Amino acid sequence: MDASTLSRIGLAGLAVMGQNLALNIAEKGFPISVYNRTISKVDETLHRAQSEGPFPLTGQYSPRDFVLSIQRPRSIIILVKAGNPVDLTISALTEFMEPGDTIIDGGNEWYQNTERRIQEVGEKGILYLGMGVSGGEEGARHGPSLMPGGSLEAYNNIESVLKSVAAQVDDGPCVTYIGEGGSGNFVKMVHNGIEYGDMQLISEAYDVLKNVGGLSNGELAEIFEEWNRGELESFLIEITSDIFKVKDDLADGDLVDKILDKTGMKGTGKWTVQQAAELSVAAPTIAASLDCRYLSGLKEERESAAEILEKAGLKEEVGGVKSEIDKKRLIDDVRQALYASKICSYTQGMNLLRAKSVEKGWDLNFGELARIWKGGCIIRAVFLDRIKKAYLRNPNLASLVVDPEFAREMVQRQAAWRRVVGLAISAGISTPGMCASLAYFDTYRRARLPANLVQAQRDLFGAHTYERTDRPGAFHTEWTKLARKEQCWCYQLSMFKGWLAGCLFQLAFGNVSL
Amino acid sequence: MDASTLSRIGLAGLAVMGQNLALNIAEKGFPISVYNRTISKVDETLHRAQSEGPFPLTGQYSPRDFVLSIQRPRSIIILVKAGNPVDLTISALTEFMEPGDTIIDGGNEWYQNTERRIQEVGEKGILYLGMGVSGGEEGARHGPSLMPGGSLEAYNNIESVLKSVAAQVDDGPCVTYIGEGGSGNFVKMVHNGIEYGDMQLISEAYDVLKNVGGLSNGELAEIFEEWNRGELESFLIEITSDIFKVKDDLADGDLVDKILDKTGMKGTGKWTVQQAAELSVAAPTIAASLDCRYLSGLKEERESAAEILEKAGLKEEVGGVKSEIDKKRLIDDVRQALYASKICSYTQGMNLLRAKSVEKGWDLNFGELARIWKGGCIIRAVFLDRIKKAYLRNPNLASLVVDPEFAREMVQRQAAWRRVVGLAISAGISTPGMCASLAYFDTYRRARLPANLVQAQRDLFGAHTYERTDRPGAFHTEWTKLARKEQCWCYQLSMFKGWLAGCLFQLAFGNVSL
Repeated sequence: MDASTLSRIGLAGLAVMGQNLALNIAEKGFPISVYNRTISKVDETLHRAQSEGPFPLTGQYSPRDFVLSIQRPRSIIILVKAGNPVDLTISALTEFMEPGDTIIDGGNEWYQNTERRIQEVGEKGILYLGMGVSGGEEGARHGPSLMPGGSLEAYNNIESVLKSVAAQVDDGPCVTYIGEGGSGNFVKMVHNGIEYGDMQLISEAYDVLKNVGGLSNGELAEIFEEWNRGELESFLIEITSDIFKVKDDLADGDLVDKILDKTGMKGTGKWTVQQAAELSVAAPTIAASLDCRYLSGLKEERESAAEILEKAGLKEEVGGVKSEIDKKRLIDDVRQALYASKICSYTQGMNLLRAKSVEKGWDLNFGELARIWKGGCIIRAVFLDRIKKAYLRNPNLASLVVDPEFAREMVQRQAAWRRVVGLAISAGISTPGMCASLAYFDTYRRARLPANLVQAQRDLFGAHTYERTDRPGAFHTEWTKLARKEQCWCYQLSMFKGWLAGCLFQLAFGNVSL
Repeated sequence: MDASTLSRIGLAGLAVMGQNLALNIAEKGFPISVYNRTISKVDETLHRAQSEGPFPLTGQYSPRDFVLSIQRPRSIIILVKAGNPVDLTISALTEFMEPGDTIIDGGNEWYQNTERRIQEVGEKGILYLGMGVSGGEEGARHGPSLMPGGSLEAYNNIESVLKSVAAQVDDGPCVTYIGEGGSGNFVKMVHNGIEYGDMQLISEAYDVLKNVGGLSNGELAEIFEEWNRGELESFLIEITSDIFKVKDDLADGDLVDKILDKTGMKGTGKWTVQQAAELSVAAPTIAASLDCRYLSGLKEERESAAEILEKAGLKEEVGGVKSEIDKKRLIDDVRQALYASKICSYTQGMNLLRAKSVEKGWDLNFGELARIWKGGCIIRAVFLDRIKKAYLRNPNLASLVVDPEFAREMVQRQAAWRRVVGLAISAGISTPGMCASLAYFDTYRRARLPANLVQAQRDLFGAHTYERTDRPGAFHTEWTKLARKEQCWCYQLSMFKGWLAGCLFQLAFGNVSL
């Protein structure tokens, strides 16, 4: 093939996401070769490139022809199912690729798989990127948020393409080089965990407004529309308003009321929760959203539990609020509770990213991450600009809730937040995500927690030792004996020995966490 | 050595747990050989066997002499640090062991390591047990709860020894054959997760009584002592009462107030939370207890957050209750909240065990597990007898909270429970574990959750489809177009196509969870 007819880039894997991203790239003027193992998908994409374009898109029908149709150094995006299909695709393509060429995996891949593949293709001199792509079908076609991590050289080779196809917001395209290794996949995973949290919190706001406030779907549509003009402005709030407007076309009423309350999931939320536990980061709001998906799946068990507990005397006390004034106040309280809960959820996600960044030496730029989430992706929101600014003010911010602006916002909203959660609890609704966020906030902001008791218990039954507030050292106490007043001189002596041992231990090992 | 002088059993690894378990076995009349790589530990144990006994305990100074001093088929317990030290010990001992002999690992090992070792030693014909041992130092010496899993033949070889050394309760010794593979370790892991939950819930009860109720340590000691005579009777409640009685011997006041509020941990709680996520089991109370340990560790961050948020206008509104009557009611409410929260936490642990049992084909007997936890271990409690009975009534119980007795207890306590959690939230304390338990209960007992909205959102942005409450099938809707009233005939046609595709999908794949 003549060099001038070679494509700028290639894309293999033409399911929904692949097709749309290929068309997006072609539409932006970058000649692209596409390939899919099932040939009909190639023709489908060619057809779309004609009918939606015409765009500079070439279909290929074999891995060899596909690879050879791309200009060197080649950049090939693959969008196939995570796991084994990625390995198979890599092996089919790399056979024809050359040192300096790049594979870019755009799937929701577990970051360690990406790190393994970086090693594997690296042995052949091939570069690799694991790139999170968010925004669903629409985003892929018209501007996603892109989170590429791995080889910086590989990123530089396609930066111009990525910047052009990504969603565009006021401060630039929604793409940045994330970092080395599997960082792109990891950041996308946490993005999805945050997305779980947002969706859960919105569903709780709906639950309270509907079942405590007695609001109709029409009223809910209006309220979410209104919220979308304020601090909550975001894609998820916007689409929630839309959802309440859709009539059922198979039966009377609104469609949202006919949807079965069982939620599906794809794994990234689970990974987020497991990684948080692994890295000693509390992420209770995200965990609550995962738990609620699990519990929603137990529909039949829940129906039977509702019956059994009703028989055992549990009465639903849920009811509408008394007056229009109460209703207005409830709506406003819920808005504030949702916002404050959301801040806590994002705090958890950002802190998880920070912990991983430290562990892996990725040197993630949190302000940049917030920026590239401002457009294209599912969690896109005006609010992310405030997170960006908080990290610009202080790149080493320990927690979003201690940023002066967010701190002020939290304090302003805490009374409303406590009212909503308290009201929900007394009404038997219990908003698990809002509760988790509030408990997280209240735990993090307390200088003194009852953890002293837990340490005393651990020392009593496991001799795990404890530290003191008033002097250094690791201490052990014979609690039971002392409590039961078996104090004799030999016991006092053993106490002194214990204290002495504690001091020596401290001298030897410093402030060891036991 | 003469066959008549050979030991019945061997134990290698003479740190605190090993020494105490060896002395316990010897005291029960089973001649035991002991070995440790650091020889002084052998002499220390021999000395204790004389001074606390004399007991039939023989010290050995090499792996070979140790193994050969035990009668065949040999049963050798090892109590060394989990992970690599276990592998090293196994390799040192199996060199001299013969087919039909058994290794019993009594450490807190990750269950998959046990399953790997079962394979590895199995190649030499050696049998293997991974045995959870709970009860700390005291338990090991005078009667632990034992959770042996792995080879049934190996278990039968030492059943008489284990039954004799285990804690004894009204319905027998606290040991049973758990199941195959790593089931013994897994059950011990979940036991520890439940222990985390119990300790967290007790610390929250303490927090509310102290900071909302204004109770003194003296009053707290009395209340926990009183609680230990009722439905909450348990080891952890008993020792909590003791803890409040201990005076500080380095300064004025009570020792509990001087303990630094930073909690340590050893990993089993983390594994429990990660496994719950892996197995799609909601375990929010156990997760909350893990999160609180993590947050407690951020002492310096918390102190600075307290300051920043105070500056931002956050006022502590925590204060004592008004009257003696209110105080009495608060104490009684907290007792009920603690009990109800505890039931939810145990429900989570048992359901995690069930999910793993199904996955691995372990066929765990939940009633038996509750029974062997009644004595010896850290979570030992009168309450476990009620759990045992619930599973005897119905071995396939979906959840403890739908057992008729527990259901009744939950309903009786829910008003008090809601009052405590609500009060704590308004006082800025937020009891994360009690909140998580209550949210869990309220989510599980509701026939209809707001998960319908989450499904609608997922269908809108990811075309994930949804099910309906009123008819079978998987459906997809063009929400945004419909909401924005772009309804034309071609759109109606595409809706019909969507519905038709849903029906075909349903016919082809049945009730697939997406």
